[in-house]
Amino acid sequence: MELLYSGKAKNVYKTKDSDIIRIEFTDKATAGNGLKADEFETKGRLNLEISTILYSYLEKNGINTHLISYNIADNIQDCYFCKLIPLEVIIRNKAAGSMARTMGVVEGCELSRPVFELSYKDDSLNDPFINDDYAYALNIVNEDELNFIKETTFKINELLIALFKRIKLDLIDFKIEFGINNEGNIMLIDEISPDTMRLWDVETLKKMDKDNFRLEVGDLISSYKEVLDRLKGLNV
Amino acid sequence: MELLYSGKAKNVYKTKDSDIIRIEFTDKATAGNGLKADEFETKGRLNLEISTILYSYLEKNGINTHLISYNIADNIQDCYFCKLIPLEVIIRNKAAGSMARTMGVVEGCELSRPVFELSYKDDSLNDPFINDDYAYALNIVNEDELNFIKETTFKINELLIALFKRIKLDLIDFKIEFGINNEGNIMLIDEISPDTMRLWDVETLKKMDKDNFRLEVGDLISSYKEVLDRLKGLNV
Repeated sequence: MELLYSGKAKNVYKTKDSDIIRIEFTDKATAGNGLKADEFETKGRLNLEISTILYSYLEKNGINTHLISYNIADNIQDCYFCKLIPLEVIIRNKAAGSMARTMGVVEGCELSRPVFELSYKDDSLNDPFINDDYAYALNIVNEDELNFIKETTFKINELLIALFKRIKLDLIDFKIEFGINNEGNIMLIDEISPDTMRLWDVETLKKMDKDNFRLEVGDLISSYKEVLDRLKGLNV
Repeated sequence: MELLYSGKAKNVYKTKDSDIIRIEFTDKATAGNGLKADEFETKGRLNLEISTILYSYLEKNGINTHLISYNIADNIQDCYFCKLIPLEVIIRNKAAGSMARTMGVVEGCELSRPVFELSYKDDSLNDPFINDDYAYALNIVNEDELNFIKETTFKINELLIALFKRIKLDLIDFKIEFGINNEGNIMLIDEISPDTMRLWDVETLKKMDKDNFRLEVGDLISSYKEVLDRLKGLNV
């Protein structure tokens, strides 16, 4: 199959149907925009399973996603082809990571309300933080599109917070991406996994996400497996 | 007089009246959050005169400013005491400086609409770029306050663009600050001068602002003097 795009942790292939792409979840892990890189056996499969459960849950709750079907044995998802909107869309419920350092607040500090944040997705520019006006002035999205993205993202935040609460995980922050399908509809693309969100155990505050790799504070695979096992127990 | 605060280019003193402060414009120039520093004889006076003309013009056009009176011989302005709102409020009409570098666009590139931008004013954090949600989540301002600041800033932009157009200067971008006076009203504080905005000659594209110091592309004092002379010619 023809490789369309090779990302930091996924490969994307063309299929015979121009409306459908095939996404392979690899075992690669990177941090700091690729400065730090490693491989973790089974990570691809764990993220595929976690992201599939979450996307199915979001679909059931009215969020349009690109996911059509998946195959765990081959670590692949078949998805609607979408033109990427070059934004990293972030919600922060608590301060953590670079945000806590930049703003001079303690990691884990409760924010008085969730923060919606955009980065301009461009590796060569190091994905700079932008605001809404930049997204308009640089012709990345128009106001209707960004309003839809914002509304959808806050809805996803509410849905994920509620889901993770049931399995005693605290959703600290997450990053999602949107695309436009061949019919012109904006939908959730990419993945939602411990690679793309911060999840802390409610009781122990243990990090259950990629910070285990970024900061080397714990075992990545056992954390991801624990997240998947708890999700599977829910039968969502 | 008791020194209340010593900034990068200004000293602020208490007066006998708790509603009034005295601001001295010094000849100091800094760039890169103080990393680069120098002094330019008469710069304080030039900025005082330019800022005074601009604040009087804005006042006449319905913008509340802290300016009460000024004295050119002593390089001082008497102003209403205001509690600083720790935001650097920026409008960019064209891409320039760090913004052009960060976004990978050519300096001078026309933006499809003006960009409103906020930095959290905190030297120890290097004045980080934030968005509206950060300003709310970090309890810097509430929505009513930020809406007022935004509306006022766009109005100031329109007024300044029109004024500078008459003296063949292109307003590329500017930074302003707001405070809350003892009666609880938000007003424009600080200064507007070639230290705090980018002005290019419409015909020659010559930089008439602090970039002459930052980038060492021309003579700072003769540029500032030229801006003041053109403003004085207008009799605003």
